[in-house]
Order: sequence, then structure tokens, then C-alpha cells
Amino acid sequence: MTVFLVGAGPGDPGLLTRRGAELLGGADVVVHDRLIDQELLGLAPSGVELIDVGKVPGASQAQAEITALLIELGRSGRQVVRLKGGDPFVFGRGGEEAEALGRAGIEFEVVPGVSSAFAAPAAAGIPVTHRGLATSVTVVTGHVGDPSAPGGVDWESLGRAGGTLVVMMGMSERTRIADELLGSGRPASTPVAVVHWATTARQQVVRTTLGDLAAVELPAPSVIVVGPVAGLDLTTLPGGSGAGRGAGGPG
Amino acid sequence: MTVFLVGAGPGDPGLLTRRGAELLGGADVVVHDRLIDQELLGLAPSGVELIDVGKVPGASQAQAEITALLIELGRSGRQVVRLKGGDPFVFGRGGEEAEALGRAGIEFEVVPGVSSAFAAPAAAGIPVTHRGLATSVTVVTGHVGDPSAPGGVDWESLGRAGGTLVVMMGMSERTRIADELLGSGRPASTPVAVVHWATTARQQVVRTTLGDLAAVELPAPSVIVVGPVAGLDLTTLPGGSGAGRGAGGPG
Repeated sequence: MTVFLVGAGPGDPGLLTRRGAELLGGADVVVHDRLIDQELLGLAPSGVELIDVGKVPGASQAQAEITALLIELGRSGRQVVRLKGGDPFVFGRGGEEAEALGRAGIEFEVVPGVSSAFAAPAAAGIPVTHRGLATSVTVVTGHVGDPSAPGGVDWESLGRAGGTLVVMMGMSERTRIADELLGSGRPASTPVAVVHWATTARQQVVRTTLGDLAAVELPAPSVIVVGPVAGLDLTTLPGGSGAGRGAGGPG
Repeated sequence: MTVFLVGAGPGDPGLLTRRGAELLGGADVVVHDRLIDQELLGLAPSGVELIDVGKVPGASQAQAEITALLIELGRSGRQVVRLKGGDPFVFGRGGEEAEALGRAGIEFEVVPGVSSAFAAPAAAGIPVTHRGLATSVTVVTGHVGDPSAPGGVDWESLGRAGGTLVVMMGMSERTRIADELLGSGRPASTPVAVVHWATTARQQVVRTTLGDLAAVELPAPSVIVVGPVAGLDLTTLPGGSGAGRGAGGPG
């Protein structure tokens, strides 16, 4: 049987893909992240086995254990859906899971999802690209690594490259990230938006600047948007009250 | 009535969101791009008015005309779906359309879609981020502007910043883009993948290097992926035959 690596989208259950919904509807087992909406899990049949492998700080299940579980389930002959927040291949470690399944000879299929990297800004009325404001968008994790290591983040070059910067999982490192970007020459007045629990009923948006980002107190899950587009809020236009919120959402 | 700016996703009709499908099912008018799959348009009711505003080279309808049409339709009281390839806010000019509608006092709602920027690489077995290979991904258009102009692309800094680079609509400028990235210090041996008609039955993938990108002949719609991850192909692993292809697709 095939293990399906399915992107659940950014939070709003209406933003799951049709293919993802179809696969959930036929699942025998769903291995899911912690932040998945209950309405999405409710798309699975009533007899489904739900396995929460959520990475709660201090109670996380190691990635190697998740991968071993997927391989074992893949061999069981049951229809396995691995439901991941956002898109499996965008900071979802889906590449690692797919690689491990493939090497073990387990068939897998990747079903992309709507990434929070783009949907979280949209839910705050921010297009990540916009004429005259941004012709590129860079998505990066807030985990600040050594730029000389393979895969490390060179914040200074990213800062200099301009365009919109979307930082995932960055709030715990926000002070250092802001310092690096200011050091690259981005002005302290650069607009910044922090979007917490994007596209859900719990959504909160804080607007600030790069110079004041350190003072923002919002826990995970939050997405940080840096650049001129973060100064836009299309939801405040006369017709824009509903912008970026799927009405099919939990709120 | 509300004008819904809906992302149609990368091509495979299975990658439309549930919310997008619901809105299409209730549409009186659908204003769509040229490359939208017929199966998606078939989700609209039988009496729907379909308006193709596709930007065929030489026969394009100016963006201002599209915006004026959306405002006029928004005032008509009919349910209007503006169906755009990929995600409306990622190089879709959806920000401009939303802004114009909002300023005209027409209610609008943005429904994000799966972006081709991430789904096209995935369909070729390429995760845009991958442990040890890439911790950031930059999405940019191939339209090479003046970096000093607002919104211009600074290819040299982008090249130096490392990480995965995804170039949308870049094939006509591929020689210049490759030259700029080589000039920024990216090695000529940097893996490159070009994904044509991603996630559809017509999909083709060409794998090359930055040094040889100029020789690739694939027309639009094509997405160029540059960086170490472009050397991966998870679909060739023993279990990977179906990777990245939604089985709900047209092929």
C-alpha cells in the first residue's frame, strides 16, 4: 500500500485540497501533527486509527521514530495518511519522510498543501508579492544556523537581497533575526507583521517594524512577514472585510 | 455580493482547495486565466458564464481591463469567482485586483491556492527545503528588472544568499538569469531542474546545471528550480513512483 504524505494547509479546514480530503476519507490510519484541526480529522472514516505525533516541546517524538512508524504502517497493508501542517515539502521535513519511505521500498505519494508561508500573510491582507513593493519572496526558518554549514542561513545576504521575507517558527529567535537583518542594511522602519494561528478563529495579527520586532510577544504558531508588503492591509479597504479568510474555516 | 479571488492551484484539479470547489459550485460568473483545467471549470453550475481573460502573448487583455471587469461584475449582484492559477497573492497580481476591488467598495475574499512555486518542484520529486541541502527558498519572477527600482530583483544578492531559488516565468530570460547567478558565485555545477506543465498529464522535467541552463528548450508554463535540492529526485527511489503527482489529476 501507499503512504500518502498530505499537506493539511495552514489551519482553515476549507484550505485542504480536494485530493487530500479524498485520501483522508479512505484512510485506515492517520498519522498527524499536533496542530491539525479536529474538523479535518473528522473527514476520516469513523473506524480510523488516529496517531498524534505532534512535536510538543518537552514531549516530542523524534523524527526518526515517526519515520520508523510510517515504514511499519506502510508494510501493514492499511491506507496510511501522514497529515502534515502546511505543505509537506516546505519546512515540513516531508522530504526526509519521503526519502526514508522510498529507500525502504514503501510506495509513497506527496500531495502538496497550501503553505502557511503564503497563506498566513494573505490572511492578514498581505500579498507576498505586489507591484512596486516586492518581486521576490524568501521563506526561511527562524532556526539561526551557521551560514558556513551546509544549509545554514546567511541572514545578511538575505537581508541585502531585498524582497519579502517570511520567517517560519521564528518568534523565539526574533531578537537575533531582527539584529541580523538590521545589520544587513534593512531600515529599522521596515514594516513587519506577525500572524499568529493564521486562517483560524484564533488568528491574531500584530503590526510593527523591524526595529520593534523584539518587543512583540506572540507564541507559536506564528509567521513573521518582513518588507514593504507587510505595511499593506487589504482587509481594511472598504470592500475588504473578508479578505484572506476562508469562510469555510473554524471561525 | 462578494468577488472571490480563488487560487486554482498548480494544474492538477485535485489540488484545488475544498473552499475553492465550494465557491465554484455556487458561481454565476467565473473569470479565469488561460491555463485553467477544463475539469475545474466543470465544477461550476451548468448555467455559469465563463470569461477567459487569459494572457496569451499578442492577445492579452490588459490588467486594467480585467480589474474593471471584476468591479463591474462585483456590482451586478452575481456570485463572481476570479479563478487564478496557483495562489492569487504569489505572482498572481491578485494583490492588485484585491486592492482595486476594495477601493471601489466591492467586497472581496481571497482564497489561497497551492502555489506552483512549491508544487512544481514537488511534482519532480524535489522538496524545496531539505535537511543539509536548503534551509531557505526564494521565489522570484524571471522578469529581470532594474534592481535599483522599487521591486527590482537583485539577482547577485539572491545568488549569494544561498538556499533554493524557484524562478517563475523565467525561461525566456534563462540565459541572463544563469549569467547573473554564476556572477554571484553560484557554481556552474549547481543542479537545476525545469518543470514544464507541472502536476498535469503534460508534465515534463529536464535536469541540468546552472552552466547548461541556457541550452534547455521548454516553453511556458515552466518553473526553474536552482540549488542542491534540484539534484534530488525522490520519485526514482524504490517506493517513489507516485511521488508528487496527485492521482486525481488529469493524467
